[in-house]
Amino acid sequence: MHILIIGGGGVVGQKLAGALARRGSLRGQEISRLTLADIAEPQIVTGTGFPVQAVTCDISNAGSVADCVTQDVDVIYLLAAIVSAHAEEDFEAGYQINMMGTLNVLERCRALGTKPVVVFTSSVAVYGGEVPDPILDHTFLNPQTSYGAQKAIGELLLNDYSRKGHVDGRGFRLPTISVRPGKPNRAASSFMSSILREPLNGQEAVCPVDEDFPHYYLSPRKCVENLVKGAELDAADLGQNRCMMMPGRMWTIRQVIEAMTAVAGPEPARLIQWQAQPDIQAIVKGWRYDLRPEKALKLGLQADDSFEDNIRYYLEDDKPAA
Amino acid sequence: MHILIIGGGGVVGQKLAGALARRGSLRGQEISRLTLADIAEPQIVTGTGFPVQAVTCDISNAGSVADCVTQDVDVIYLLAAIVSAHAEEDFEAGYQINMMGTLNVLERCRALGTKPVVVFTSSVAVYGGEVPDPILDHTFLNPQTSYGAQKAIGELLLNDYSRKGHVDGRGFRLPTISVRPGKPNRAASSFMSSILREPLNGQEAVCPVDEDFPHYYLSPRKCVENLVKGAELDAADLGQNRCMMMPGRMWTIRQVIEAMTAVAGPEPARLIQWQAQPDIQAIVKGWRYDLRPEKALKLGLQADDSFEDNIRYYLEDDKPAA
Repeated sequence: MHILIIGGGGVVGQKLAGALARRGSLRGQEISRLTLADIAEPQIVTGTGFPVQAVTCDISNAGSVADCVTQDVDVIYLLAAIVSAHAEEDFEAGYQINMMGTLNVLERCRALGTKPVVVFTSSVAVYGGEVPDPILDHTFLNPQTSYGAQKAIGELLLNDYSRKGHVDGRGFRLPTISVRPGKPNRAASSFMSSILREPLNGQEAVCPVDEDFPHYYLSPRKCVENLVKGAELDAADLGQNRCMMMPGRMWTIRQVIEAMTAVAGPEPARLIQWQAQPDIQAIVKGWRYDLRPEKALKLGLQADDSFEDNIRYYLEDDKPAA
Repeated sequence: MHILIIGGGGVVGQKLAGALARRGSLRGQEISRLTLADIAEPQIVTGTGFPVQAVTCDISNAGSVADCVTQDVDVIYLLAAIVSAHAEEDFEAGYQINMMGTLNVLERCRALGTKPVVVFTSSVAVYGGEVPDPILDHTFLNPQTSYGAQKAIGELLLNDYSRKGHVDGRGFRLPTISVRPGKPNRAASSFMSSILREPLNGQEAVCPVDEDFPHYYLSPRKCVENLVKGAELDAADLGQNRCMMMPGRMWTIRQVIEAMTAVAGPEPARLIQWQAQPDIQAIVKGWRYDLRPEKALKLGLQADDSFEDNIRYYLEDDKPAA
């Protein structure tokens, strides 16, 4: 089995590659090859029992996609995207990468006729507007950002290309991933990791919202477990919609900081600076947090048990050595 | 005010042009010019108090769209589409025209910077799958045809381009329009007019479903009234979603035939041949009919009072002279 991770250089892509390396198999078959593709050449994972290659791919370019999505690819993880605040600032880049990029990958699969499994990462940013709470499996997607609109379009494409037999798609609306390792990025949600990660690393961080701000979170570790499970789901169990929420949990900023303090003591929380940022608030306050991912839970996907777990996973998996 | 109707050669486009000619104004302004655009040059409406021109436009071609959507256009009706059974057969044409065509029009508006009102016709074909009845304003769009997927994508684009200020969009999910004048087309719903129209014209017609088949209908006359009203709605009243159901009513085949008999006597119904057609049934049985268009009704859009009205409108507006 040849697995291709598009967006393989990102945090989730790298962790997924590591998880696949440890497992050695997917969908009941031995992994024979793993390709990591990204706009810049991704880091290779090591210690695998199978060959791993890293390639560059610009998904907004159909020719580049054709070079990367080859005849022998069995499973494609399509994780590549321009993130929320970036897509909101750069309208064209958002549509080129998030919408046309997804279309290019699906069109390439249709041209090949190989019907690969395509695991697509959508986002809870597809929800918004006057839609009533709680968000259920059959709630209207009403994105209030370009990023959310592009992800919702990706879902419609994935469903239609699957219905027509061009791919075997499954899409998951990711909660905000926290604690995300590495550096801040241009996602409006970036602070939801940095107010924990930087203090846990002994550095200051800025919180742009107040401590009552509620949001819907998932740890990187559980996200990767769900993405593996997502590829393994039986297509027949997906019914007439290949896309669903990925389970997460709602916490306030106060709760995630309390969890950090419970695990790591009182010092890190003192490194948080409180500075209201209206531009960030304008995006994140439109996001929804009362989500009920019944379909995904029934299919065996999982949320974290407590945010203290999220903190521990960061310390175990990601905290840089001093 | 310069109004452009893209899809101006179709049944709804021609009737809308006639209605605008009779009104002479839209959105409180005098109509100074009307352009009808379609893939083949549309027929010109006559008896208008303003100049009317007919042009050809292929919306799948961005250059052709640029020729047709000019700086001085204030209101665009975007009615052009490949219909349901056609889009289901020809996957590429459906995406090129229904998805990329819509994107081309919106991109042209963005490039111009003139922020025209764009009235987009979506379809109740955006609904489907396991989504529970009744269909409400906040029900998940879960199309089970390529046509429905392309229309749902059009809605997301219209909303995002509106939110960003590139257009002032408003979209309406049309019920099946019946009694539709003219010839059968490649819409899977074509029979829902032809089993009435042909008998009313003294000709035989084939009904491919049984008489208990329920569906959601609107007359062409009310559809056009709603499209006029749709352009005139105050953007502030649309809230955070520019698209909504256009009101219709649910009737069974038996009921629409009874309405025909009530208005036109018993002869026409005897001209209906009953021949089950599994390919047509496979599409139309996935469509939804228990719809509750509360938002549109609140904004003043209307359904027909009875299907007998639909029959009478056909006889008054469309029945060819003997």
